[in-house]
Amino acid sequence: MVIDELKAALGEKVTLNATIREHHSKDESFHTPTLPDAVVFATCTQDVATTLKICNAHQTPVVAWGAGTSLEGNSNPIRGGVSLDLSQMDKILRVSGEDLDCTIQPGVRRKQLNEYLSQYGLFFPVDPGADATLGGMASTGASGTTTVKYGAMKQLVMSLTVVTANGEVITTSRRARKTSAGYDLTHLFVGSEGTLGVITELTLRVFGIPEVIAAATMQFASVREAVDGVIEVIQLGIDVARIELVDRDAVVAVNRYSKTELPEKDLLLLEFHGSAESIAIDIAQAREVLGRYGGAGFLQTTDEAERRKLWQARHDAGLACRSHQPGGRIFSTDVCVPISKLSQCIEETQRDLADSKIYGPIVGHVGDGNFHVLLTAAPNDHAALERLEEFHTRLVKRSLSLEGTCTGEHGIGIGKIDYLVSELGREAVGVMALIKKSLDPNGIMNPGKIIDDSFYL
Amino acid sequence: MVIDELKAALGEKVTLNATIREHHSKDESFHTPTLPDAVVFATCTQDVATTLKICNAHQTPVVAWGAGTSLEGNSNPIRGGVSLDLSQMDKILRVSGEDLDCTIQPGVRRKQLNEYLSQYGLFFPVDPGADATLGGMASTGASGTTTVKYGAMKQLVMSLTVVTANGEVITTSRRARKTSAGYDLTHLFVGSEGTLGVITELTLRVFGIPEVIAAATMQFASVREAVDGVIEVIQLGIDVARIELVDRDAVVAVNRYSKTELPEKDLLLLEFHGSAESIAIDIAQAREVLGRYGGAGFLQTTDEAERRKLWQARHDAGLACRSHQPGGRIFSTDVCVPISKLSQCIEETQRDLADSKIYGPIVGHVGDGNFHVLLTAAPNDHAALERLEEFHTRLVKRSLSLEGTCTGEHGIGIGKIDYLVSELGREAVGVMALIKKSLDPNGIMNPGKIIDDSFYL
Repeated sequence: MVIDELKAALGEKVTLNATIREHHSKDESFHTPTLPDAVVFATCTQDVATTLKICNAHQTPVVAWGAGTSLEGNSNPIRGGVSLDLSQMDKILRVSGEDLDCTIQPGVRRKQLNEYLSQYGLFFPVDPGADATLGGMASTGASGTTTVKYGAMKQLVMSLTVVTANGEVITTSRRARKTSAGYDLTHLFVGSEGTLGVITELTLRVFGIPEVIAAATMQFASVREAVDGVIEVIQLGIDVARIELVDRDAVVAVNRYSKTELPEKDLLLLEFHGSAESIAIDIAQAREVLGRYGGAGFLQTTDEAERRKLWQARHDAGLACRSHQPGGRIFSTDVCVPISKLSQCIEETQRDLADSKIYGPIVGHVGDGNFHVLLTAAPNDHAALERLEEFHTRLVKRSLSLEGTCTGEHGIGIGKIDYLVSELGREAVGVMALIKKSLDPNGIMNPGKIIDDSFYL
Repeated sequence: MVIDELKAALGEKVTLNATIREHHSKDESFHTPTLPDAVVFATCTQDVATTLKICNAHQTPVVAWGAGTSLEGNSNPIRGGVSLDLSQMDKILRVSGEDLDCTIQPGVRRKQLNEYLSQYGLFFPVDPGADATLGGMASTGASGTTTVKYGAMKQLVMSLTVVTANGEVITTSRRARKTSAGYDLTHLFVGSEGTLGVITELTLRVFGIPEVIAAATMQFASVREAVDGVIEVIQLGIDVARIELVDRDAVVAVNRYSKTELPEKDLLLLEFHGSAESIAIDIAQAREVLGRYGGAGFLQTTDEAERRKLWQARHDAGLACRSHQPGGRIFSTDVCVPISKLSQCIEETQRDLADSKIYGPIVGHVGDGNFHVLLTAAPNDHAALERLEEFHTRLVKRSLSLEGTCTGEHGIGIGKIDYLVSELGREAVGVMALIKKSLDPNGIMNPGKIIDDSFYL
């Protein structure tokens, strides 16, 4: 009956096709796939409003869908209902070089956006790795390798158009660079994982493509030395655009997978954006600081092809570390701690991995205190999965004990619902639940994510 | 009866003293003073929780109070009740040079914080002019002259401890540099002007004091040329720490008031933070760009006393422009537009001032698109006040038509409630009202601010 109404209103944008439903049943994580009852391909804000109005009247779940690249089951339709596919809403609506901003539809992908912006000499910096949609990136509060210089989605989304559960369309802010006008609805929707509304338009800050981009790498004898060097680089305000750790295990995996011959040590990869003069100063300062922490084998380049080669270890790490488990799915971890606690957190985690005989190379956005243990789950090996989950629980507990968070950038999704309560307490999650209930009284928006149902009852 | 309960619970922290109540009846704006029924001086989070529990049970309004420096009646107790004074909660609880953050109580003032941080070689950049409390600055979503480089309160508050209307204490986030853990409660409370809860602890980002600080000024023949130059400086990513406009009228007022002999032209004041080398590059670039827009009379210095002198026009502008109206109160305006529209907005505003024979010199945080018309209201001249209000309405309408906001940094308070609806629409304000109602069902938290009562009914 819901589907009949949707078809009457939206025609062929509604499909029950099994292959398409299957495609919308899971993201890139290990979480169990679940089929939606139907998929709606929205092409405009009005389609989204129509879908939500009908589904709200029938109390049918609606789960927004972008590129399916999330890592916490964020877009899995775990209670069926409608998967609302926004990938056809992929228009770039406006770019302003004067104001350094743009307005786009939610289905625009990261690479598409940057290709388009390049003709204006502009770029959008948030780089989570995957070629995600910007709507999805806003919904999960994504960040990535450039956050240390440019900020995460939280810092770079200026305004959103959102359809709320009852089909109302709101715009959260004007296009001014700053505002104190009322509650910050923009930030309420960024990172809410589609549980409060569906984003149908985004206004984003963009940046001028730097005159020069320089890449550099250095090797270290231990994670502690590498990270302590990073702390001082950050503390001195040296202007790094990216500063990434690839640990020794990950370097070994890359050498095997990519046939490279990198020294098998803990590796820092850096990138600098600016003018030739300013970059020269920044690189010299960073090299001097990191040298004092034992950093060796310094290499640098501004040539684009060579930059890509220098950063290959970082780009290949994910695939390389997972290549031992063909067909395996990503079991992601993304704790983030105050940077002063990062060495301790990584060292204890490496000991835990060794003690529990789990293979887990580490890469990290160390300038932000954020790192990933690259775990892989064989789809049907329940015993192995359970061991990974136990390890993850210990990792999160460790992060929380060091004043960190259970998720620096992937969101809560399905798997971290209990961790959120450990992290912020029942009272704070209770406040989130009050907000959720006030905006989505029928609980149709991506149910079963972020907040446990028990908080509503 | 409420007061009896409060006294029983909090003893001498509760006062009915007439002078103290009078002191808590108004902020620095022209808005009509109203006495609170009592003032409670909280010394800890528990005092705040106790006050809110008792007041919530009796449906008695509670208005948080910091330094009383707000400019939109934000802290005026317009419906009586309790003025909850947090100025005695002025402890700096923790500073981390490694993590570049600190945790403080809400009554800590800006200058006090920076004096304390200086011993660690650190500073907190948000500078709204007044020596406000940090709790108040978070509540109004303050910003100021350094926002162009360092961001506003929105960007620099990492976490808050908040007491909600029912007396529950929550912490909104961990101390990690970034997080995607659940709804962004931090940003919900920043800028909510005490209408959702009372902030009792803040964790803030801080920065290393720059090696060198350089100040510079240049004169322009018109606001358009000055602002067009600023646009290009921002667009090129030249690293300015402050870039402020003082228009010709304000320069004239300063010359008269401060006995200076500045050229009576539109003035840009700049500040640069960094190393000697990086600053030299930035200044040369900025000077070259601004020179192409007719900028002349370039002066620069890195000496602290000389810097203060070079920036005197900016510091004295407020008092100078208001000196013609002794005893007058501040009628503040703070529209903020996309920077590409800033020249047009200021030019049209200057024409409007001339046409309506209103004296209104302009100063602006032009790197952000934000400017103030320095109006002064004689307390009992109702006809004059009405003319200012009509002018303000036209100014806001102009800003909104240029995709701007009615408030860049002072908040909605009492005076801009209708403008908020014009700015974001009834649906968006309706969403704010749903959130307000869910967190403060009895409407005790700073009632009559931000959202009109009619939205609850």
